[in-house]
Amino acid sequence: MDTRVSSAATEVVVGDGRPTVLIGERINPTGRRALAEALKAGDLEMVRREALAQAQAGADMLDVNVSAFGVDEVRLLPDAVSLLTNVVDLPLCLDTANPVALAQALNAYRGKPLVNSVTGEEKSLATVLPLVKNYGAAVIGLVQDEAGMPANAEQRLAIAHRIVERAEAMGIPREDILIDCMALAVGADPGSGLAVLEAVRRVRAELGVNVLVAASNVSFGMPDRQLLNSAFLSAAICAGATCLIADVARVRPAVLAADLISGRDRRARRYIEAYRQRQTSPTRAT
Amino acid sequence: MDTRVSSAATEVVVGDGRPTVLIGERINPTGRRALAEALKAGDLEMVRREALAQAQAGADMLDVNVSAFGVDEVRLLPDAVSLLTNVVDLPLCLDTANPVALAQALNAYRGKPLVNSVTGEEKSLATVLPLVKNYGAAVIGLVQDEAGMPANAEQRLAIAHRIVERAEAMGIPREDILIDCMALAVGADPGSGLAVLEAVRRVRAELGVNVLVAASNVSFGMPDRQLLNSAFLSAAICAGATCLIADVARVRPAVLAADLISGRDRRARRYIEAYRQRQTSPTRAT
Repeated sequence: MDTRVSSAATEVVVGDGRPTVLIGERINPTGRRALAEALKAGDLEMVRREALAQAQAGADMLDVNVSAFGVDEVRLLPDAVSLLTNVVDLPLCLDTANPVALAQALNAYRGKPLVNSVTGEEKSLATVLPLVKNYGAAVIGLVQDEAGMPANAEQRLAIAHRIVERAEAMGIPREDILIDCMALAVGADPGSGLAVLEAVRRVRAELGVNVLVAASNVSFGMPDRQLLNSAFLSAAICAGATCLIADVARVRPAVLAADLISGRDRRARRYIEAYRQRQTSPTRAT
Repeated sequence: MDTRVSSAATEVVVGDGRPTVLIGERINPTGRRALAEALKAGDLEMVRREALAQAQAGADMLDVNVSAFGVDEVRLLPDAVSLLTNVVDLPLCLDTANPVALAQALNAYRGKPLVNSVTGEEKSLATVLPLVKNYGAAVIGLVQDEAGMPANAEQRLAIAHRIVERAEAMGIPREDILIDCMALAVGADPGSGLAVLEAVRRVRAELGVNVLVAASNVSFGMPDRQLLNSAFLSAAICAGATCLIADVARVRPAVLAADLISGRDRRARRYIEAYRQRQTSPTRAT
């Protein structure tokens, strides 16, 4: 099943057997004080620089989150979207928990964006899905609900089914839904890694939709996070994840390796090309 | 299901939920001319040094293969085994296609070794399994047979079932069998990576035995082999592999990361300890 998203001029396809689609996570002020301060002041220069750096590092799409204490998202999110559509020609992932900001951002967008995210909570389903439908967007379905974080693969599956059913009932085609299997910190819950991987396999098998994982969450609180993230994303890609939200510059070599292992890189063209680029300009992340 | 092997003084347990057991692959002259020449001259000094280096790098067991053109394995393999039992206190994996050399090596061994390997070929089953039974060893069952390399997961499963049935019929307990799911070069067969991973999952589910993969084969012919091997072994461990044959110094950080992801490293004790060792002595592989 292929999920298509687009900027004004570029289409990106997420799908089985295709190279894993990388969504750059760096435009997000969570845990980044300087970016939060800039956003609070309405200054989008750091956003512009992060966008260029991630495009250069090989991002296929960019997540855009401007949510921080003191930021007026309803005004700033559409501004950031407008800016980014002029800076990089990549589809955007509109990341907000504020439905009014989401509506404004969808309005400002040219092309078919990805909405991040709808959850299994009734309030979220009722608010976000109509916007997704009206604007013809694609949407990330995050497997949490009123009960909070899912405790195992079973709960993840149940919420995924609920989100897909509600979206389809509203006329959103199944191929426009990506399920985020909700990776959690393995330091806090040692069983969550395998639970997510089982959920990835079963969502693919039972629902057929594309599956996304956020590759940076698993390593929260641990040293050498890149090592841990790489191990997790390799396993997630081999289990069937077709899209990652990640720090692209750091994870891309491991993603290309996992794509080759999982048969998504015929003739190893992308793997070898990235290797050659690292050889010729070792400081540039490929 | 726990597989127990031992040297004279040390027991190693391979099993579900336990840390992945690492078998050092470096005592093997395949593709290593200097080692092949030394073995041909009966000189075991390089073997001794490789054993110490791998033990230092964190190997749980050592594979011992002295097979090269011009080497008398029947004489040299038991000599190497005797030497190694004095040099390192790790269980050994006796790696030979020569049944007479295997018998001599089993005779020279003190403890319970691992035999590498029996295949699904009638000749191998009939020759190797009686030796395994007589010496009370554990054995690696390699999923190839008269038809050659397995083409998919299905064929791997069929051969694994055959090996386990034959071994059990001969009185070898199931817990003394590790199935090697036969990783192949992804450069030659892009589908083989996922086929091996599916076989790992199904062998664990259908037969319950421990599963081993040789982590270095997948990257044959590719650049940056360590990157590719790490991606593959992370996925293999998360799929249920409990034992790896690998270049321990190169893969150990990725293995500890995958063990943490897959719930085999409670409180992240081993992961954090290895990280600290890398920080204090960065040139020493941990």
